[in-house]
Amino acid sequence: MTTAAGLALGTMLARTSQVSAAEPNPNKSSAGAPSLNLGVAGYSMREFSIEETLFWLNRWQLRFWSIKDVHLPLDSSREVIASVKARSEAAGVTIYGAGVIYMKTEKDVTDAFAYAKRLGARIIIGAPNAELLPRIEKSVQDSGIRLAIHNHGPDMDLFPTPESIYVKIKNLDPGIGICLDVGHTQRSGIDPSDALEEFSGRIFDIHLKDVDKAAKDGKTVPMGRGIIDIHRLVKTIVKVKFNGVCGLEYEGSKNVTLPGIAESLGYLRGVLSNG
Amino acid sequence: MTTAAGLALGTMLARTSQVSAAEPNPNKSSAGAPSLNLGVAGYSMREFSIEETLFWLNRWQLRFWSIKDVHLPLDSSREVIASVKARSEAAGVTIYGAGVIYMKTEKDVTDAFAYAKRLGARIIIGAPNAELLPRIEKSVQDSGIRLAIHNHGPDMDLFPTPESIYVKIKNLDPGIGICLDVGHTQRSGIDPSDALEEFSGRIFDIHLKDVDKAAKDGKTVPMGRGIIDIHRLVKTIVKVKFNGVCGLEYEGSKNVTLPGIAESLGYLRGVLSNG
Repeated sequence: MTTAAGLALGTMLARTSQVSAAEPNPNKSSAGAPSLNLGVAGYSMREFSIEETLFWLNRWQLRFWSIKDVHLPLDSSREVIASVKARSEAAGVTIYGAGVIYMKTEKDVTDAFAYAKRLGARIIIGAPNAELLPRIEKSVQDSGIRLAIHNHGPDMDLFPTPESIYVKIKNLDPGIGICLDVGHTQRSGIDPSDALEEFSGRIFDIHLKDVDKAAKDGKTVPMGRGIIDIHRLVKTIVKVKFNGVCGLEYEGSKNVTLPGIAESLGYLRGVLSNG
Repeated sequence: MTTAAGLALGTMLARTSQVSAAEPNPNKSSAGAPSLNLGVAGYSMREFSIEETLFWLNRWQLRFWSIKDVHLPLDSSREVIASVKARSEAAGVTIYGAGVIYMKTEKDVTDAFAYAKRLGARIIIGAPNAELLPRIEKSVQDSGIRLAIHNHGPDMDLFPTPESIYVKIKNLDPGIGICLDVGHTQRSGIDPSDALEEFSGRIFDIHLKDVDKAAKDGKTVPMGRGIIDIHRLVKTIVKVKFNGVCGLEYEGSKNVTLPGIAESLGYLRGVLSNG
């Protein structure tokens, strides 16, 4: 990067460990307060470089990242994949998942699982065509890598709701589940806590955000400012003993995303700190 | 600005009212949950233009700004002051205060009160030399503008603690009080909630932040990540019926400030939302 902001960021990245040391205890909370496995969904950071993404994850003290193809294309060489994995580990961040990965052909399925295996990701967050599910089931069984199908909301026919996923996977291998996108779920008119209670046995991953209305044209807003009942959501995540990653996701340009995620993270930690 | 980020920000500013409409209800909270008069202390935004500052205040739905000389020098013409005041009002933001303003001479006092009067500010947040207090008392009485003396912490001899201010002002006009900087107070080894309970009758303004340690070299960190008992602070602000502005303040470069304030604001609203 050549902008002043970019240079400043580079300098800051060099001081990442220092920053981390100076900002301890991100999940500090009242005795007995719940904690979540918080991370970032790769899509949120699509306008940032890998270096910047790792810097911000460190600054936010988030240890889990699901990587998106924009940071690491699926056809990357083994060497490039290994390098990104190593850079991430060196920064103290685990690439636990890959996605959202769209799969329209059998080759897409093969490629996605090969990519996840090289990355060491334990889960693929995917948007596969439904007719590929038998093929995916075989890949899940062969690889030991789970697949969480992401629900998209009322603006896409492909798995709009958690239920639309559940009905298609309930009789398949238990390694195939759901990534509950709480924003798209709420935009479909469904309280994501209801969906989490109903399908918790098959929900492997959660995309956290807030939305301004329960409608197709609802927009992402910082958590706590929208219509999702975040308090109920946090309580439900704890109640169903969800042990996957809750990845913060923010739709919007770079300038909007950074403070949007930061504010969401602060709000969530504020709510959690109350026990 | 000529960077891509700057241009994007300009475009965003043009959509400010739209953004505000799309992000309602910033202080939404459980029934009976407390709310604070939240704002931003001008120092935090010193690397941002006035336009950017107003954009972010709008985005964060903060209505109170204490302006610093970096945005509006004290020797600005009446026309420039009127223009900044008008731009701020048009953006829905009240310049309720001016400061922190250092005052080393009688002329500095005269200039500060003339500036605040032209701005329509109802309070000056100041760092005056102690020998000027009789002169300041007269200006407070003449102008009806209050003065809140800002405490600086263990790295400055000039009013390091709230108590060091109180002992010098307790017998002066009740329009002279304290701006409680919770970070500098904690760095002095004093829980800011203790100071607020003890001197609440004379505390007119609060600078909100968190710090990583109770020491001279303590650094600002996002609220909730440091050592200040924010829960107790919020409860104390409500308990003493503080009705001034709580201005978020963040020390650090531009890249650090924006997500730092956003995270702090989210945390604070998360804590408040629990009632």
